[in-house]
Amino acid sequence: MQKLANRLERLGTETAFSVAQAAAAWKAKGNRVYPFHLGDINIPMAPHIVEAMNRAIADGYTGYCPGPGIPQLREALAEDIGARRGMEFSPDNVVVMTGGKPVITKFLQAVMDPGQEVIYPNPGFPIYESQIEYLGGTAVPYRYVPTESGFAIDLDQVRASITPNTTAIIYNDLQNPISAESTAAEREAIAQLAIEHDLWVLSDEAYFETRYEGVSSSIAALPGMAERTVILYTFSKKFAMTGSRLGCAVAPLEIAQIMSKLNTNDESCTTHYVQWAGIEALRGPQEPVQQMLDVLKERRDVACEIVNSIPGVHVAVPQSTFYLFPDVTEAMERKGFTTVGEFATAALENTGVSFCTREHFGRRLPGEERQYIRLAYSGIETADIREGLGRLREWIEA
Amino acid sequence: MQKLANRLERLGTETAFSVAQAAAAWKAKGNRVYPFHLGDINIPMAPHIVEAMNRAIADGYTGYCPGPGIPQLREALAEDIGARRGMEFSPDNVVVMTGGKPVITKFLQAVMDPGQEVIYPNPGFPIYESQIEYLGGTAVPYRYVPTESGFAIDLDQVRASITPNTTAIIYNDLQNPISAESTAAEREAIAQLAIEHDLWVLSDEAYFETRYEGVSSSIAALPGMAERTVILYTFSKKFAMTGSRLGCAVAPLEIAQIMSKLNTNDESCTTHYVQWAGIEALRGPQEPVQQMLDVLKERRDVACEIVNSIPGVHVAVPQSTFYLFPDVTEAMERKGFTTVGEFATAALENTGVSFCTREHFGRRLPGEERQYIRLAYSGIETADIREGLGRLREWIEA
Repeated sequence: MQKLANRLERLGTETAFSVAQAAAAWKAKGNRVYPFHLGDINIPMAPHIVEAMNRAIADGYTGYCPGPGIPQLREALAEDIGARRGMEFSPDNVVVMTGGKPVITKFLQAVMDPGQEVIYPNPGFPIYESQIEYLGGTAVPYRYVPTESGFAIDLDQVRASITPNTTAIIYNDLQNPISAESTAAEREAIAQLAIEHDLWVLSDEAYFETRYEGVSSSIAALPGMAERTVILYTFSKKFAMTGSRLGCAVAPLEIAQIMSKLNTNDESCTTHYVQWAGIEALRGPQEPVQQMLDVLKERRDVACEIVNSIPGVHVAVPQSTFYLFPDVTEAMERKGFTTVGEFATAALENTGVSFCTREHFGRRLPGEERQYIRLAYSGIETADIREGLGRLREWIEA
Repeated sequence: MQKLANRLERLGTETAFSVAQAAAAWKAKGNRVYPFHLGDINIPMAPHIVEAMNRAIADGYTGYCPGPGIPQLREALAEDIGARRGMEFSPDNVVVMTGGKPVITKFLQAVMDPGQEVIYPNPGFPIYESQIEYLGGTAVPYRYVPTESGFAIDLDQVRASITPNTTAIIYNDLQNPISAESTAAEREAIAQLAIEHDLWVLSDEAYFETRYEGVSSSIAALPGMAERTVILYTFSKKFAMTGSRLGCAVAPLEIAQIMSKLNTNDESCTTHYVQWAGIEALRGPQEPVQQMLDVLKERRDVACEIVNSIPGVHVAVPQSTFYLFPDVTEAMERKGFTTVGEFATAALENTGVSFCTREHFGRRLPGEERQYIRLAYSGIETADIREGLGRLREWIEA
């Protein structure tokens, strides 16, 4: 048989699914599992959104629709995304996609040639690195350093990483997995570097509205940035619509047109009636969004309190996302573990608490000494958070 | 601003949307339009399919699901697609996708390196050529020759086009736009060439079950073919689910695993609750499918009869798809047109009949002298077919 394409050697993936598999296997043996590994939401889609989808089906919106999305959704997105960022977008800037994730590959396809470099966050969403390398680029990681309130980007490292061959930087404020949030100064520094070195910017804003205090800001709104920034937007987290696969890019016109053409090539369009559901999500009642945030905030508070009561574990309370990224270095030492993967496996088998670790979010960087795990509280009830993390504490204390 | 990626220079698209735009503009001026340009279906999704989707939502299937699809749908697809082809597939061979179209790019990404050649049908679905070239390959067209019953592949040309650098052939039996259907001998000859030259095969079977007489056969079922063939399957045409974006690849295991990884990279998964609708489509009542075929058959018969009564226009009656690809060479001469694009524009403006032409389905090949248009009867009622094609006849006769 003929060989397969060479490009596949460069294709990475998300490895977190192996954690889900291990948790499922442990549960299948009759054990209780506390699922902190899921980046998914155990809260239903709001009924008014489902109703809007059914109205669209009844109205006959079951056929093909335009590659960049139906005009009504593009308009609603331009308005909503613009208003929340203090920006003005035309519907032509908006390209509807099957979730936020397709924006990553389509951004890179549009701006990066093979051999070019793209700077990306590590730890970070693993598909950044996978797609940069799959498309023939060089993935150059930048790191975060722990601060009292969470994590800060190592700006000196970002600056030192830029070469004449750098074409873009991926920026994920309100960060998965570490819940880092930029100060205004940090966001401006990244923008300044992008302008100075004429870089494209992918601003992954998946968690822009998943926040419990404060107000989100977009790097795209800073002077000189709109024309070089593509915003990744998704309905997934804000509206508990992860399985609906609905998101968009907000991009400079030229890039929006390219992405639209890529949509026509890759999947024709995004599910038609789901787009009408998206309009209702944006323009209909917003109470379900606030209710979900209230639930998530309670979970966060409970989780943070218990996590910080575990000896050798600590985490700053993040204002956004639904992830905690506690430092478990001392707890691991206490229990005699040298790799965080072994620690996670032992935690599952001794307490039923299932979680991803730093290893699922990119290659460990040189000089990285602290150990971290990621606890997602979007898919687990408060009572189970209490019980599960309580068991984790007992085990680590023992 | 930094330049965009060079690969974009190789990205093609579907140009048929310009026909839809021209038709819409003509209609907006107050004219009656008869839409024969749409490859879409003006028949609703069956209610039991919509109900299954709503049950899935009510049951909480609104979160992420596995990249290659939910196991239940993969199993239903393996069973259904296998049974209809006299083959045995495992659910592991099935990778659910957002429609049939994603199978094209993912097949090429899996088997073709830049610089390699892929043989594809022309006239044919325009995304074949676009994606071969976008991914750095060389698109080598093969042609069809008219026969009494439709069109036949020019097998000598296919044979002569294969070089040591050829990695795959795209085969679209029950063909869009020309409705060609292979004889058993032709299908076997293509299979023989693929085996002899060790080629991968993409078998686009989008219209496998859109047929009015006879029985469809898959090239994948021929000896030695299953291990080198990827089947493109879609719910779009059979179940009037074009806007639902649901399809799959049925592929050898190694390629299925690659496609699954590509799904994880590109869009995480296909809309979760739509996959449950797909299970109902496959396993629930099949009467709506037959009813739609009955409607389409009536339209086909009416359209063929009128088309063949127009002076200088003729078409063989196809047994499948919902396209007619009549030869209009003499009619064009009669009306004094030298390009089929001008003929189409004049037809729209004189009769309201809107259609695509041969030009929308790939670059015209050397030596190609006959002129063709494509009439789709999936999006227009029988009465309108009668009226519209009647006007076309009057105009050509005049």
